[in-house]
Amino acid sequence: MRILYHQWLSPFCRKIRLILAEKDLAFELKEERVWDRRSDFLAMNPACQVPVLVDDEAPNETAVLADSTVIAEYLEEVYPQRLLIMGSPVERAEIRRLSAWFDGKFDEEVTRNLVGEKLMKRLLGLGGPSSEAIRAGLSNIHYHLDYIGYLCERRTWLGGDHLSLADLAAAAHLSCIDYIGNVPWDEHGDAKEWYARVKSRPSFRPLLADRMAGSAPPAHYADLDF
Amino acid sequence: MRILYHQWLSPFCRKIRLILAEKDLAFELKEERVWDRRSDFLAMNPACQVPVLVDDEAPNETAVLADSTVIAEYLEEVYPQRLLIMGSPVERAEIRRLSAWFDGKFDEEVTRNLVGEKLMKRLLGLGGPSSEAIRAGLSNIHYHLDYIGYLCERRTWLGGDHLSLADLAAAAHLSCIDYIGNVPWDEHGDAKEWYARVKSRPSFRPLLADRMAGSAPPAHYADLDF
Ligand SMILES: N[C@@H](CCC(=O)N[C@@H](CS)C(=O)NCC(=O)O)C(=O)O
Ligand SMILES: N[C@@H](CCC(=O)N[C@@H](CS)C(=O)NCC(=O)O)C(=O)O
Repeated sequence: MRILYHQWLSPFCRKIRLILAEKDLAFELKEERVWDRRSDFLAMNPACQVPVLVDDEAPNETAVLADSTVIAEYLEEVYPQRLLIMGSPVERAEIRRLSAWFDGKFDEEVTRNLVGEKLMKRLLGLGGPSSEAIRAGLSNIHYHLDYIGYLCERRTWLGGDHLSLADLAAAAHLSCIDYIGNVPWDEHGDAKEWYARVKSRPSFRPLLADRMAGSAPPAHYADLDF
Repeated sequence: MRILYHQWLSPFCRKIRLILAEKDLAFELKEERVWDRRSDFLAMNPACQVPVLVDDEAPNETAVLADSTVIAEYLEEVYPQRLLIMGSPVERAEIRRLSAWFDGKFDEEVTRNLVGEKLMKRLLGLGGPSSEAIRAGLSNIHYHLDYIGYLCERRTWLGGDHLSLADLAAAAHLSCIDYIGNVPWDEHGDAKEWYARVKSRPSFRPLLADRMAGSAPPAHYADLDF
C-alpha cells in the first residue's frame, strides 16, 4: 500500500492527498512529527519535511519521493490516466505557474502568517502568535482571493478549461485557512463559487473530515453549501 | 529572438541562462528592475519576479513564461534534444528534488542570508546588512557543501550519471555566493572538484563574465583553476 507521510494542516500534504484521490490511487496516511527528526524519516527526505510519498505500487521499483511539486510531477508521469497538468507546453506552464504561485507567494504571504502563527507555533511550542504576522495574513488574503476571482471571470477553472493541479494547490491552501475560519468568503463571491465547486468533489471529502486535536474548525468548514 | 528578463545575481535567472546555453538556444538578456514594478512586466508576471522568458521561437505561439521551475519544465518539453531532467520517473524525481533543495532550502538558508543581505539590500536601499543573517549564511553553507560532497562520492553528478538540472540549480546559487567570495572551497574538496567541472562548461562562461556595477568579484571567481 502506498504511504503518505504528512501533517494534517500542511497545504503541501493536502495537495498530494487531493491528487492521489483525483487519480483514484489508494494510499494510507501516516502522521509524521517532523520536529522529532526521526532518522528513518531523514533517510527518506534529508530536508525533513512532509509530504513524503512511498509508492510501492509503481511499475518497476518502490519509489520514495519528497517535495510536493516533485511528487505531483512524478504522479503525472506514472499515472497519466487522469491528467492534472494537461494541454500544450504553454498551457501546462500556466498550470504550473499558478501552482507555484499558491505554494510560493500565497504560502509566504498568507498561509504561514495565519496557519503557521496560530496553529503550528503552538504545536511546536514556539511561543505565542505574532499579531503583526496575523494582521499581514488577514490583509494579504484579499488580493489573492481577488486574483482567483479575476481568473474565474476568464476561465472555467484557475488554470484553464479543466480542473488541474492549479485548483488543487490553491484549494489545499485555502482549506487550511478555512479550518481556522480566516477566509473572508462573503467579500469574494467569485472565489467562493469556485471553492464550492472544488470542495464538492469526492476527492475533497476526506479533508473536510479532518479534525485536529484541540482545535475544531468552524461549522461551515465541512459544509458544501457554506 | 528569445528574451530573458533577469537580474545579474539572481540564482533563478542564472539557472535559466545555463539551461538555455546547455540546450544551445539563443537568447537576449534584458535586465528588469523588478522593484520599479513596471506595468508591462507585471502583465507578463503578476508575481513581479525574474526570471521571465519570452520565447518567440516556440513551435506554435509566442510563449511568456514565469518562474524558473516552470520555465525549466517548459524548456524540457519543447526542446528535448538535450535533456536535463532525464531517466525514469524516479530518476527524474531525484533530479527535481535536488533542484528544489537548492532553490528552496539552500536559497533560504544561504543565498538570501549572504547575497540578499550584502548586495540586494544595498541595491534596493533597504539599509545595511544584518550581521546575524550573514553569520547564519556563512555557517549554513558548510552543511550544504558537505551534502554536495556526499552526493559526489556516490554519483558522477549531483542527480545521477549525467549533468542535469540539479547541477545547474546548485551551481547557479553557488556562483552568486562565489561572486561575493563567500564559498569556503578549500574546506570542501569534493564540492570544489564538482564545481570546477560545472564551471568549465561552455554554458558557464557568460556567467563568469558578469560584473555588477560597484562590486567586483574576487580574482578566483572567473578562474577555472581556482
Ligand atoms: N517545498 C516543500 C515544502 C514542504 C513543507 O514546507 N512542509 C512543512 C509542513 S507544511 C514541513 O514539513 N516543515 C518542517 C520543516 O521545514 O522543518 C513541498 O512542496 O513539499
Ligand atoms: N520561485 C521563483 C523565485 C524568483 C525570485 O525570487 N526572483 C527574485 C530575484 S532572485 C525577484 O525577482 N524578486 C523580486 C520580488 O520578489 O519582488 C523562481 O523560481 O523563479
